[in-house]
Amino acid sequence: MFNLDTRLAGDTYCVGDLTLCRVLLMNDTQYPWLILVPRVAGAVEFTDLSDADYQTYCSESRLVAKAMLSVYPDAKLNIAALGNVVSQLHIHHVARFNNDIAWPGPIWGKYPAKPYAPEQATALVKQFQIQLSIKDES
Amino acid sequence: MFNLDTRLAGDTYCVGDLTLCRVLLMNDTQYPWLILVPRVAGAVEFTDLSDADYQTYCSESRLVAKAMLSVYPDAKLNIAALGNVVSQLHIHHVARFNNDIAWPGPIWGKYPAKPYAPEQATALVKQFQIQLSIKDES
Repeated sequence: MFNLDTRLAGDTYCVGDLTLCRVLLMNDTQYPWLILVPRVAGAVEFTDLSDADYQTYCSESRLVAKAMLSVYPDAKLNIAALGNVVSQLHIHHVARFNNDIAWPGPIWGKYPAKPYAPEQATALVKQFQIQLSIKDES
Repeated sequence: MFNLDTRLAGDTYCVGDLTLCRVLLMNDTQYPWLILVPRVAGAVEFTDLSDADYQTYCSESRLVAKAMLSVYPDAKLNIAALGNVVSQLHIHHVARFNNDIAWPGPIWGKYPAKPYAPEQATALVKQFQIQLSIKDES
């Protein structure tokens, strides 16, 4: 059975579920940052997904990329599956800007997260739910 | 017309071409590190690829991931499209190990590359050509 890693759950707000992936908003105001987690128990590498699930992931990643560029047209996207710390397969989709705090370096492990105010997070979650046609189940 | 970015060319050995992507071996002994570059002029984001090219990229990335895990079964793959420094769309496929120099942090911008001896590079290129069924055109 799929269970979201507790560290991922603790660091994020839930945007909702696409067909395959759970979409999470990283609780860090420093970068617009979504994480896709395929709801497949035990998956660590992309190669742990079936061909069909991998194709679905690829489509969902493209959907999220388009949504982020729609919201942040000047962004450079950083899309990355790392998993060196949290092994559960999860793929970062981060909108980067040439004036963000870590630019042009990678963001992971660089600066402690600066959490959203709850109403900011709610507004961003809502915005991405609309962009991704995810129904609000809260 | 597609031209490989000169910085990517300078930092790598060419493994060869798949249907869409040029496959490069990063000239850094610290990590087994392949880079896929879709041969599409002007592409910066995945969303710059047509739907068909994006699907081809996804298949080729999966092929490369399987090849790397076949050569390095104990690796954790890091697969990332960043492009904050070199904007030409290129996707890193890196085999990470829990005793590599940068573990568990990201590798980009961390340590200067340690180049391969030419015969080491030739052997690795050959190995990946076989794994990826790329014809040696040297």
